[in-house]
Amino acid sequence: MTEQRIAGCYIPTFDLQGKCDILIEDGVITAIEPASGSAVGAIDGSGLYAVPGLTNAHTHSPLSLMRGAAEDVSVDDWFNKRVWPMEVNLTPERVRVGARLAIAEMLLGGVTGFADHYFHADQIAAAAEELGIRANIAPTFFSTDDHRGRDEAFAVTRQIAKSGSRRVTASVGPHSTYTVSEEDLSASARLADELGIRVHIHAAENMQQTHSSLDRLGVTPLEVLARTGVLGAGAHIAHGGGIVTDDRDLLRANAATTTVACCPKVYFKHDIDPITPIRLLHDVGVTVGAGTDGAAGGNTLDLWEAMRWTALAQKRQEHDPLFLATREAFDIGTRGGARAASHDRSGTIAQGMAADIVLLDLSRPHCQPIHDVFATLVYSVQPSDVVHVLVDGELVVENRTLVHADLGEIVGQARDVAPELVRIHEGEAVQHYAP
Amino acid sequence: MTEQRIAGCYIPTFDLQGKCDILIEDGVITAIEPASGSAVGAIDGSGLYAVPGLTNAHTHSPLSLMRGAAEDVSVDDWFNKRVWPMEVNLTPERVRVGARLAIAEMLLGGVTGFADHYFHADQIAAAAEELGIRANIAPTFFSTDDHRGRDEAFAVTRQIAKSGSRRVTASVGPHSTYTVSEEDLSASARLADELGIRVHIHAAENMQQTHSSLDRLGVTPLEVLARTGVLGAGAHIAHGGGIVTDDRDLLRANAATTTVACCPKVYFKHDIDPITPIRLLHDVGVTVGAGTDGAAGGNTLDLWEAMRWTALAQKRQEHDPLFLATREAFDIGTRGGARAASHDRSGTIAQGMAADIVLLDLSRPHCQPIHDVFATLVYSVQPSDVVHVLVDGELVVENRTLVHADLGEIVGQARDVAPELVRIHEGEAVQHYAP
Repeated sequence: MTEQRIAGCYIPTFDLQGKCDILIEDGVITAIEPASGSAVGAIDGSGLYAVPGLTNAHTHSPLSLMRGAAEDVSVDDWFNKRVWPMEVNLTPERVRVGARLAIAEMLLGGVTGFADHYFHADQIAAAAEELGIRANIAPTFFSTDDHRGRDEAFAVTRQIAKSGSRRVTASVGPHSTYTVSEEDLSASARLADELGIRVHIHAAENMQQTHSSLDRLGVTPLEVLARTGVLGAGAHIAHGGGIVTDDRDLLRANAATTTVACCPKVYFKHDIDPITPIRLLHDVGVTVGAGTDGAAGGNTLDLWEAMRWTALAQKRQEHDPLFLATREAFDIGTRGGARAASHDRSGTIAQGMAADIVLLDLSRPHCQPIHDVFATLVYSVQPSDVVHVLVDGELVVENRTLVHADLGEIVGQARDVAPELVRIHEGEAVQHYAP
Repeated sequence: MTEQRIAGCYIPTFDLQGKCDILIEDGVITAIEPASGSAVGAIDGSGLYAVPGLTNAHTHSPLSLMRGAAEDVSVDDWFNKRVWPMEVNLTPERVRVGARLAIAEMLLGGVTGFADHYFHADQIAAAAEELGIRANIAPTFFSTDDHRGRDEAFAVTRQIAKSGSRRVTASVGPHSTYTVSEEDLSASARLADELGIRVHIHAAENMQQTHSSLDRLGVTPLEVLARTGVLGAGAHIAHGGGIVTDDRDLLRANAATTTVACCPKVYFKHDIDPITPIRLLHDVGVTVGAGTDGAAGGNTLDLWEAMRWTALAQKRQEHDPLFLATREAFDIGTRGGARAASHDRSGTIAQGMAADIVLLDLSRPHCQPIHDVFATLVYSVQPSDVVHVLVDGELVVENRTLVHADLGEIVGQARDVAPELVRIHEGEAVQHYAP
């Protein structure tokens, strides 16, 4: 049995004042006690703040290689003239390189877990295992006549789900309600039920999609998820800006297993309004996490920014500056994200929870003075304030440095493969966006 | 004559590809040349990107001491139950301590200049001179029967304006169109004319204020500025979310000397909608800069965030993802801010301009790969990417460290004085907010 201790840190989310020690056995928090005063044999947390690791509730990690390659375009052109033509160039190797870059960025910025949704998902799983981050990965597919994409994605889903990995788990990953047939959605729900996992899917991303669904099918995207069994299997919904009040009853009935990701940066960049209706979702008991989406849209995987602008954008949307107070906003970045990623034992510093912990230096001028530590955490902290990061009690970032890989090598590989990945071959694309 | 050289850096805003040397004499850029290959006797810029220093177009620097002390409240309560009661506790010493903290944060984050608007402005001027940042400071006052606030502010305005300082200049600082009488606005305009400076003022901050002005006076806040001579003298307007199409002709007639600051973070926090109408302002030739407002509202003085969310919020407001493309957004944070702060020789790396330059390390994973360097600058860069900062060719941040002051001392003093500053004495306030 491995025993560990984080010594002498402050824990804003815990009801013990003053300096604390966090005791960890086999990756699980076993006790939180007033500091013994000694840091011998421990991770020295003196002067640092321990907070639950953040979870990125929705991303496509390999898109880090397209950071800045699809700027100042409409949503339609982003898909049809940039990202989907570029994705013709995907290879397993390029996906691995992009995932490693993304995971490096996330870990160094205090993200201990993420919900991913992408192709060549086995490569992402391997990168997550290598670098030590917690990941829930949804191998993604579009519907095609020959079911090849679906069958390949399902095979990888099974493989990850049955791997027995403590860190890397799976969700079923149909791309969306508008690119996947109801037959394939039903098959996804059955696979999720069989494996005891959930379905991570883009649905009701914006109001236009909801109206289009009503026009074409007579039902909302959420009703499509319901009638195909996806909502019943457990759904993690990306974006949900097109969720409407008519969806309330469905959501309430499935609240325990439904989660939604809010990714504010891309909504502003692409003029998506309204955005994820968090008040409605909270009212019916659905958990919301903050996400960055892929860096081809959101540019960074900075969960502090995603959490902060989730709160700010929601105050504006609700015309209520009191909505999502600092403590609630922090929960969205931590507990909410963890539930969204099916990381149910992450997101909270408490006995029995996984030791997914970030140690922050809040002494820099942008964090001082501290009148309300949750305001500091939500509105001031930057990724560079992260000093140490633990996942399952294991140090994966120590003194701002990756433990398991060389950052220079990761960045160098990304630079090498990126130019070929973003080359556009006229007329080629993995899919056409017309929701 | 002092000669300096920054050797071997990339300059995204300049039309010379590859590595460059920047030659500086007496604080002014004299030449930009292909790199000589030697860094002997120079600031080593190899591997770094040189960009114009950012300018914070509107802040109240001493409010850094209230960071996090006024969260989750309405605009009215922010003023009437938090900040204006707390400001009863202002002393010259506390203002100096807060200004030093704010300036430290700004310099370390690549902000080389700022437009400030506050009380005890001589203390802010002293802090700016000490730490080496460029500042345009507007000594602020409310109208009172005995004119004491106005007279004191005017005296400090004269003192700064006539100091002959290269770095610290003044604007006249009436608080707003709703807290200052037209008599005092006219006096402000006359003083600005006399001293050859402009007027920095809160005006038309939101649509409610514009409607209230129309109800009470029959004219918009901009028309108040016009009829009191402020617009003619040259106005720097904070916020301007309540600027309307009826103001277009006035703005166009005064475009050369009118600037506006957009501070997105506080607009979202306090549900101010619409925000600064940048498209309208650009259409009539008015320059816009990005600002943070005071940290009592915006929490940080991170100009990268202010620039980024200015662009993102404007794309949303205009329903046009193509509006404020990356290069234009970067101009708002640099050239636009510099003009807003009357720092007309800052904000651009070019011959004859002041050497206000930031050297960035863009090798961290959140900035890589670089497909579009202006996308990197606007959507990815974090304050922690700033390595060196020069103002007037003088290094004021070297290797991420303040050159002229001890950061630990600055933060320690801020911690010491903050608790007394935020103490609320029932029934006391410097002013009542009822615009």
